[in-house]
Amino acid sequence: MSARKSVAVVGASGYTGRELVRLLARHPGIELRAVMGGRAGQQPDPPELPFDDVVEPLDLARLAGVDGVFLCTPHGASAELARQVLALGPRVVDLSADFRLRDPAAYAATYGHPHPCPELLAEAVYGLTEHARARLAGARLVANPGCYPTSILLPLVPLLRAGLIDRDAPIVADAKSGTSGAGKAPTARTHFGAVHENFLAYAVGTHRHAPEIRQEAGFDRITFVPHLLPVFRGILTTIYLQPAPGVGADEVRACLREAYAGERFVRVYPRGLPELSRVQRTNFCDLAVAGAGAHVVVVSAIDNLVKGASGQALQNMNVVLGLPEDAGLAP
Amino acid sequence: MSARKSVAVVGASGYTGRELVRLLARHPGIELRAVMGGRAGQQPDPPELPFDDVVEPLDLARLAGVDGVFLCTPHGASAELARQVLALGPRVVDLSADFRLRDPAAYAATYGHPHPCPELLAEAVYGLTEHARARLAGARLVANPGCYPTSILLPLVPLLRAGLIDRDAPIVADAKSGTSGAGKAPTARTHFGAVHENFLAYAVGTHRHAPEIRQEAGFDRITFVPHLLPVFRGILTTIYLQPAPGVGADEVRACLREAYAGERFVRVYPRGLPELSRVQRTNFCDLAVAGAGAHVVVVSAIDNLVKGASGQALQNMNVVLGLPEDAGLAP
Amino acid sequence: MSARKSVAVVGASGYTGRELVRLLARHPGIELRAVMGGRAGQQPDPPELPFDDVVEPLDLARLAGVDGVFLCTPHGASAELARQVLALGPRVVDLSADFRLRDPAAYAATYGHPHPCPELLAEAVYGLTEHARARLAGARLVANPGCYPTSILLPLVPLLRAGLIDRDAPIVADAKSGTSGAGKAPTARTHFGAVHENFLAYAVGTHRHAPEIRQEAGFDRITFVPHLLPVFRGILTTIYLQPAPGVGADEVRACLREAYAGERFVRVYPRGLPELSRVQRTNFCDLAVAGAGAHVVVVSAIDNLVKGASGQALQNMNVVLGLPEDAGLAP
Amino acid sequence: MSARKSVAVVGASGYTGRELVRLLARHPGIELRAVMGGRAGQQPDPPELPFDDVVEPLDLARLAGVDGVFLCTPHGASAELARQVLALGPRVVDLSADFRLRDPAAYAATYGHPHPCPELLAEAVYGLTEHARARLAGARLVANPGCYPTSILLPLVPLLRAGLIDRDAPIVADAKSGTSGAGKAPTARTHFGAVHENFLAYAVGTHRHAPEIRQEAGFDRITFVPHLLPVFRGILTTIYLQPAPGVGADEVRACLREAYAGERFVRVYPRGLPELSRVQRTNFCDLAVAGAGAHVVVVSAIDNLVKGASGQALQNMNVVLGLPEDAGLAP
Repeated sequence: MSARKSVAVVGASGYTGRELVRLLARHPGIELRAVMGGRAGQQPDPPELPFDDVVEPLDLARLAGVDGVFLCTPHGASAELARQVLALGPRVVDLSADFRLRDPAAYAATYGHPHPCPELLAEAVYGLTEHARARLAGARLVANPGCYPTSILLPLVPLLRAGLIDRDAPIVADAKSGTSGAGKAPTARTHFGAVHENFLAYAVGTHRHAPEIRQEAGFDRITFVPHLLPVFRGILTTIYLQPAPGVGADEVRACLREAYAGERFVRVYPRGLPELSRVQRTNFCDLAVAGAGAHVVVVSAIDNLVKGASGQALQNMNVVLGLPEDAGLAP
Repeated sequence: MSARKSVAVVGASGYTGRELVRLLARHPGIELRAVMGGRAGQQPDPPELPFDDVVEPLDLARLAGVDGVFLCTPHGASAELARQVLALGPRVVDLSADFRLRDPAAYAATYGHPHPCPELLAEAVYGLTEHARARLAGARLVANPGCYPTSILLPLVPLLRAGLIDRDAPIVADAKSGTSGAGKAPTARTHFGAVHENFLAYAVGTHRHAPEIRQEAGFDRITFVPHLLPVFRGILTTIYLQPAPGVGADEVRACLREAYAGERFVRVYPRGLPELSRVQRTNFCDLAVAGAGAHVVVVSAIDNLVKGASGQALQNMNVVLGLPEDAGLAP
Repeated sequence: MSARKSVAVVGASGYTGRELVRLLARHPGIELRAVMGGRAGQQPDPPELPFDDVVEPLDLARLAGVDGVFLCTPHGASAELARQVLALGPRVVDLSADFRLRDPAAYAATYGHPHPCPELLAEAVYGLTEHARARLAGARLVANPGCYPTSILLPLVPLLRAGLIDRDAPIVADAKSGTSGAGKAPTARTHFGAVHENFLAYAVGTHRHAPEIRQEAGFDRITFVPHLLPVFRGILTTIYLQPAPGVGADEVRACLREAYAGERFVRVYPRGLPELSRVQRTNFCDLAVAGAGAHVVVVSAIDNLVKGASGQALQNMNVVLGLPEDAGLAP
Repeated sequence: MSARKSVAVVGASGYTGRELVRLLARHPGIELRAVMGGRAGQQPDPPELPFDDVVEPLDLARLAGVDGVFLCTPHGASAELARQVLALGPRVVDLSADFRLRDPAAYAATYGHPHPCPELLAEAVYGLTEHARARLAGARLVANPGCYPTSILLPLVPLLRAGLIDRDAPIVADAKSGTSGAGKAPTARTHFGAVHENFLAYAVGTHRHAPEIRQEAGFDRITFVPHLLPVFRGILTTIYLQPAPGVGADEVRACLREAYAGERFVRVYPRGLPELSRVQRTNFCDLAVAGAGAHVVVVSAIDNLVKGASGQALQNMNVVLGLPEDAGLAP
């Protein structure tokens, strides 16, 4: 049995940091050694009540002794922190977008500033766990996938590899996310009065996750449109693909069932359709397939804060540190 | 100025009937003469409080004197009621699905029983008002469009007519509806605990509105998938189309702006995107166009109870009775 | 019939200003001459879309010609604006708290700064319309009641006057409000993630509406605790009072029914209980009475943005300008 | 260390049964041996998907070998099942109301039918765990407290015992509950369209939990009014009490802090106020105290499905079976 490991969470005041702390509290093989804010010199708010989690100021020196560090800091800030933490020894799982795009030019075009640490890009492993285990095993730096990409790549990657999709036809990924994906900072867009009893599409043709999706799918003709749901947790994506000749919904479903046959966290439905309530607060990605007109439709559901962020980050850290992959992730 | 007209609402205890009563209360040119339940012999519930609307038992004889009757009764029941009411004299706007499909065989296949009054199908006018005025003027019987079809046909009809869409490529209509579309009767599916903080796709490839959409679009390759939102009012549909050669988002937008230039209830956005809150409790259909990858994306938003049901029904009745088309429909 | 009047709304970018603009659009006897922001020199945001309402910069000179001005500006700012507008001629209905407390010392203690225009306090009429008509008729300046006070005073004022309440026992007013009462500015408290699927009490013993309630009730022993509901519109207050000897729920209900017998906007239930959905988007205050143990319980429901703010403001302006009191306020 | 115990859940298709199954899945010391429906001969629905929990038909014989049985069956049905199960050997924790009222006449008056097993009433232990440990230790039958009573009794019991409350003045308990308290069966009252963006009081002066509250408080003058919140989980109760002479909020808070000083699941706030989000999915009861006018206000928050039902039931079962009281109940 593997020995107990130690980790720290940096940038713990946001939703993904808080979620990681919640998951780690139940982890049998990891000790949570430090919970820190994201910026040096920034004194985090004291806990509101005595039994609240304490977020300490960022103190890199204290990270030297831990086995792994989760960075829940914003893109732009994470890259530099990753470099500093790696120099101290710990492995890093970065939940920001900083190491997801392999091409620094694509990063600059997407995020509006040069990549802060291009020299680390080559060794960063894109942590879509089910498809990255071999590289994760010895990795020092993991780029944790974006929430939308996770919900789209888990179904598309096996289908594209198996050649079941007509590559001459574009794929539609119509994704709907709860508001936690927009973060904890109050904005006009996430004000209760702007979300409740409302629904909208946004960033049509311009969302920052589109290059990440295309890179990891290895397929450019994916049209991705995100929408904002009046729920807190969850992403449900409806994917419309045109199958290769002779392929129908049954073949697509069979391919996914085979691809994920031994997987703990990807459930391919034999019938029925996923809904957010089936995956909320779990690390599951639920997939279902149905034919509709000229398309095969794949419906994919995850909890954006778990499989779409902190749960997958923990799954990746487990692999990196040699722990059982599902430790701390029971539903 | 046109003389004051009189109408009745039959099947007034559901959401669409109630909405019609609400709209008619403000109508300057229509007197609401009777508000009846949908089944003969069925004694409707007494009003809960003295100031509640009274829904009276169905009494066909009393409908003889009115100019128009709204049928808010379920499909299957509406057709026979329509025949009886027409025999008494009034014009009929039927909010059910009974007269939407021109082919009785398609009706039987879709609704699971033979059409109750096939002899009336030929004269029924499909009341997508903006595209049906010429036929509505003298009509005796109007088939009020379904909620999902309204949100999809208003953008697609002008684009297909103008030849801006590549007819060799399938169109995706990913539609999201509030729960009022599922009606007022309590079901496991519409229980608060099953809807709140949840979201799901349903009826993939099998929804009854699909044949109606294809018939009125005059185009078969439309893949329509409905979803259930945790909101009460509104449908937002995201439509993915592949444009004809040389056509882009700008041409698509220009086509819609021209098609609806003089229209009171269809608003084509020069920029930005619709959201449900902009159309709730109005008769507007809001449309926006953006390019995304290989697709041109059209986002369409309506209030399913207003433009998707009772508002459009009133708009149709206004045309049928020679009243100003927007009477009683100010936002 | 009264001639058409003209008004302006100042501070129109918040929820109450927007609600007033919505109500005035339907008013048959008032022309809305100007819709302005709340601060001089502040250039309001341009309308997002061509069909959005335009909020113009504050321009006091343009207010000289109108009959009435609604101030939807924050407390502290309203008082000085009221003085300037009154000097130009128009009557003023101020929706802020600036003229609600008659005693400038109470104002300073409650709002944390000296009253900006104490010389106007004496002539300001507290506009709980149903109880203020005589003074409203010739008024130049109306202090529009707070939302919580409206929901509490409409039931309590007649009961205290009639001596039906045991004045030796304290009254409990447990009030629950939708988030629109907290305004349109994004805050941590009104972030979707902090409100949705949540509920809380706040400002126990310290809310600024408590002195206003006590002043207008003429009774000090009222314990008022507000709560934040995960809804957008509405206040429901549950009032627990101990009746005077020989008085029970029936006498309390009869007193309220008599007090509001001729009233258009106060509905006293013969049976059943109010709920928010019955009053949302209306100017109604719904009241019901039931006995429970040692208490008589009065449940009161209003839409905080209508009867609790803009609707009552319009009702007051109608009286001030000699228009029919319910003009523009039909449900 | 105690040996591993075995239990069964009967009536597992409702919300409380489902919640128990969820909690037991994490329990280190209990094996869940059977998950059954509530009625003999009733074939429960098959699981929708292969990975769903299976609810088996009721089979009393199979319960003979387990250490404890949770009854999540409706009042009226539970009592007879309890008798049969007890005869087979296992201890019983009954989540229904059948054994909460000690007086069978009070039961008949409250529930509208004679008590099915009055002979068991004497030995049933009312399981407000923190105040029932001594009797729970050897108990065969536990009456699990109602959700509202739990939220009210945990604060009131120590205060009444300590004499800090003026017994000549009535207490107000204004309680607000999420819809899961109303159960899983679809009704007009719990339809999404009737709950969402709505709020209401109900059962004023007539709720079935009132006699239970008075019995266990040992104090009759408690006025309890329940309300229905548009949330799924949680009860927040605002309690207004008049303190005994010389007592204020500080003394009340100190009394509660002392009473619950060593308790794992009752948290008395030194400052601030509880909200539902702090207790949802936990077994905590959070309490805060503040002065307001003539009253001391105590705010109490629980998750109605956990501390108000299944969590407390498991806490009770742990005590009954000699397991650590908090086993399986970590937040």
